[in-house]
Amino acid sequence: MLEEMLENVKKTAPLIHNITNYVTVNDCANILLACGGSPIMSDDIDEVEEITSICGGLNINIGTLNQRTIPSMLAAGKKANSLGHPVVLDPVGAGASLLRTRTALKLLDEINFAVIRGNVSEIKALARGSGTTKGVDADASEQITKENTEQMTAFAKEFSQKTGAVIVITGATDIVADKNKAFRIYNGHKDMSRVTGTGCQLSAMIAAYVTANPGDTLTAAAAAVCAMGLCGEIAKKRTRESDGNATYRNYIIDAVYNLTPEQLEKEARYEMQ
Amino acid sequence: MLEEMLENVKKTAPLIHNITNYVTVNDCANILLACGGSPIMSDDIDEVEEITSICGGLNINIGTLNQRTIPSMLAAGKKANSLGHPVVLDPVGAGASLLRTRTALKLLDEINFAVIRGNVSEIKALARGSGTTKGVDADASEQITKENTEQMTAFAKEFSQKTGAVIVITGATDIVADKNKAFRIYNGHKDMSRVTGTGCQLSAMIAAYVTANPGDTLTAAAAAVCAMGLCGEIAKKRTRESDGNATYRNYIIDAVYNLTPEQLEKEARYEMQ
Amino acid sequence: MLEEMLENVKKTAPLIHNITNYVTVNDCANILLACGGSPIMSDDIDEVEEITSICGGLNINIGTLNQRTIPSMLAAGKKANSLGHPVVLDPVGAGASLLRTRTALKLLDEINFAVIRGNVSEIKALARGSGTTKGVDADASEQITKENTEQMTAFAKEFSQKTGAVIVITGATDIVADKNKAFRIYNGHKDMSRVTGTGCQLSAMIAAYVTANPGDTLTAAAAAVCAMGLCGEIAKKRTRESDGNATYRNYIIDAVYNLTPEQLEKEARYEMQ
Repeated sequence: MLEEMLENVKKTAPLIHNITNYVTVNDCANILLACGGSPIMSDDIDEVEEITSICGGLNINIGTLNQRTIPSMLAAGKKANSLGHPVVLDPVGAGASLLRTRTALKLLDEINFAVIRGNVSEIKALARGSGTTKGVDADASEQITKENTEQMTAFAKEFSQKTGAVIVITGATDIVADKNKAFRIYNGHKDMSRVTGTGCQLSAMIAAYVTANPGDTLTAAAAAVCAMGLCGEIAKKRTRESDGNATYRNYIIDAVYNLTPEQLEKEARYEMQ
Repeated sequence: MLEEMLENVKKTAPLIHNITNYVTVNDCANILLACGGSPIMSDDIDEVEEITSICGGLNINIGTLNQRTIPSMLAAGKKANSLGHPVVLDPVGAGASLLRTRTALKLLDEINFAVIRGNVSEIKALARGSGTTKGVDADASEQITKENTEQMTAFAKEFSQKTGAVIVITGATDIVADKNKAFRIYNGHKDMSRVTGTGCQLSAMIAAYVTANPGDTLTAAAAAVCAMGLCGEIAKKRTRESDGNATYRNYIIDAVYNLTPEQLEKEARYEMQ
Repeated sequence: MLEEMLENVKKTAPLIHNITNYVTVNDCANILLACGGSPIMSDDIDEVEEITSICGGLNINIGTLNQRTIPSMLAAGKKANSLGHPVVLDPVGAGASLLRTRTALKLLDEINFAVIRGNVSEIKALARGSGTTKGVDADASEQITKENTEQMTAFAKEFSQKTGAVIVITGATDIVADKNKAFRIYNGHKDMSRVTGTGCQLSAMIAAYVTANPGDTLTAAAAAVCAMGLCGEIAKKRTRESDGNATYRNYIIDAVYNLTPEQLEKEARYEMQ
C-alpha cells in the first residue's frame, strides 16, 4: 500500500512550490530531489500565483514568516485551491507568537489544506486558536506518549473533521489522521530532533507524496511520515562514533535518496485504527 | 590554457559580491571559498553599491527574487559596470513567471553582463523575451542533444552577439560561447541535477574565474564550467552505495576545494569551434 | 572552570533567539542543537519581542541586514535588555559599508550587549566608528600576531570598558576580554576560515554559553571560543585527503555535538591576563 505511494512520486516527479523559511530551505529542496520530486521556491506576491500554477502541489511553512511573505502564502494557497492542487501547511512555531498563531489561523480560514503537519504544541495551538510552545520544538510536557495516544488520535481525527485536512502530528509516535481513520507510526529516531528542519523536510516530502497520489491523501501522507522516520533509522545505523548532527542530517537525506518502494513497504511500522 | 585560469583564481582570491537566492546561498559561499575566491552576500539597496565597490566581481542570481532585491540587483549591476567589474547573471527560472522573465530582461537591458549562465529553457526564455519552463530545472524537451548541438551552438553565439555577454548553457553537454567561438564541454555527471543549486554554485564560481582573468572571459568561463563538471565526476567516483544527493553535494564542493590547475588542464574534456 | 560552562549548556538547553543572515543560518541552527541549546529564528517586527521573551538569550548578526530586519534587531535587543536576557552582537562586515557600520553603532548605542564577537577589522570598525574591511573576512593586514597581541589585548579591554560588553576578537589567536581580564585562546585551525560561517556559528554558540552561565559571561564566552577552536582541530584531524571545506564544515558541527565538558577542560589552550 505504501509502496505504491512512493512509486507514484518516482513516476510522476511532482514539482512542488515551496513558500518556506530561510533556515531549512536548502534541506527542503534537497529532500524533494532525493525522494523523486522537484522543488521550486518562490515567495514574491507578484509571481506566486503563476509559479504555483506550473506546479503540482504547494507547501506553506510559516517559519521566518514576515509581512512580505504572508500575503504571498495566502495568494498562492488560494490559487492552488482553485486549481485543485494539494496544499500542505507546516505551522512552525504556532503558539510561540501571536503573529504565527494568527497567520496560521488566517491560512486555515482562507485556504483548504490537504495536510497540516506539526508537533503537538503547534497543532494544539491551532486547535485552541492560541497557545504557548517552547520555541519551534515541541514542549516536553506535550508529547505523544503511551498514556495519551488514544486521546491524541481522537484529537487529530476531530481536528481533521473540523479542517477537512489530514492531520499529521509528529513526535516519538506519529499520528496521521483523517476524520475516520488514523495511522500510528512508530518509525523514527529520537536524535532526529537534534537536526534542524527534519519537520520542515517532512512537510515538503508530504507535499510531494500527496501530489503524486491524488486519490489517497491519508495513505500518501502516512507513507511520507513512515519514509522519513525509516530514513532516520537507516541514517542512524550508518553513523559512527565521531558523527554528530551534521553528518546525521546528510545521511537522512541520503537515505531518502536511496529508499525503495519495497523497502518502505517492508520496514514501515504502523498501526491503523 | 584552463590551468592558468584556476591559477589566477588561487593567486588573486577574488572577492565576489553575490545577490542571490536564499535556497542555495550557503553552497555558493562555500564553493567560492573552495575554489580560492572569497564571498560577500549583500542585497540591501542602501549598501549594494558600496559593497560591490570593494569587490572584484558581481554575481546576480534571480532565484527567490523579490520587490526588495530587484532594485538592489539593478543598482549593484550598474555600479559594477561603472567600475569595470565583471557581472554574471544567473536567470533562475526565467520563463517560469512573468516577474522572472521581465526582471531578467530588465537586467539585460540596463546592465552589461560578462557572462549569462542558465539551462536551455532559461536562456531561450531570455532570447525569446518570454517562455515556459518546468520550474527552475530545464524542460526535458529542451536539452542539448547530439542532434541539436550545432543549432544550440549557433544560438549561443548569436545570443552572445546580441547581448555582448559570454553565454553559458548547461546541460548534458555544456556550451560556452562568445559571438565568434564556442566551447562544447563534456565534463559532468547526470546526478548533479539531483543536488539543488549546482547551477547557482557554478554561476558563483564563474564570477570568481572571470574576475581573476580579466583578459579572457570566454576561456575563464569555460574553465569554470569544466571545473564544475570535472568535480561532479570526481565526487561521483567518491560516493558509495549508501550515499545520496546530500553526501554528493558535499563531495562536489570538496572536489572543488582540492582541484589543482594541472588536474583541470588534464581532465577537462571539450571541443572548440 | 570551562567544564562547568558547557555542563550548564547541556543541563539548561537554552533557547536562543537568532536574528541572523540567510547565508549561514542553517549552520547556526545546527550548531546550537549540537552544543545542547535550541534555536529559534525570527526577524519580523511584529513578533520579535514576543519571540525573544520566550527565549533565554538573543543573538544579533548583521550579515545580509536589510531595512526590514534592522528595526527588528533594535526592538528585540531592547526587549531582551528589559528582560535581563544576554544579547550577543556579531557585526558581520562592519566597516565594509556605511549601512553595516552605522547599524552596528546604532545597535551598540541602543542595546546593552553581553558579548560582541567579530574579527579584528570588524571590532576596529566599531571602535573607530568607521573603517574598511576586506569584505566579511578579516583584512590580512589586520590580524592578531605575536607582535601585536599585547596591544590587541589592551584594545579589547578598553573597548569592553567603553561598551560594557565582553569583547571577542577572533583570528589566529582569539582574545576574549572584559575591562579587567583577558583570555588569549590558542585553539583553532587556519582552515576554519575556508568554511563559510564559522564566525557566525561561534556567535550563536556564545549566546548559548552565556545564557546558560548568567554569573560569568567572560568565562562562558571564553569557553565557547575554546570549544569552537578545539572542534575545528578535532574535525581537521578527522579529514582525509579528498575532503575539503564541505566535509570540514560537517565535521566541525559533529565535533561540537560530541564535545564533552571534560574534553573541553582538558584540551582548551589559553592564557589569562
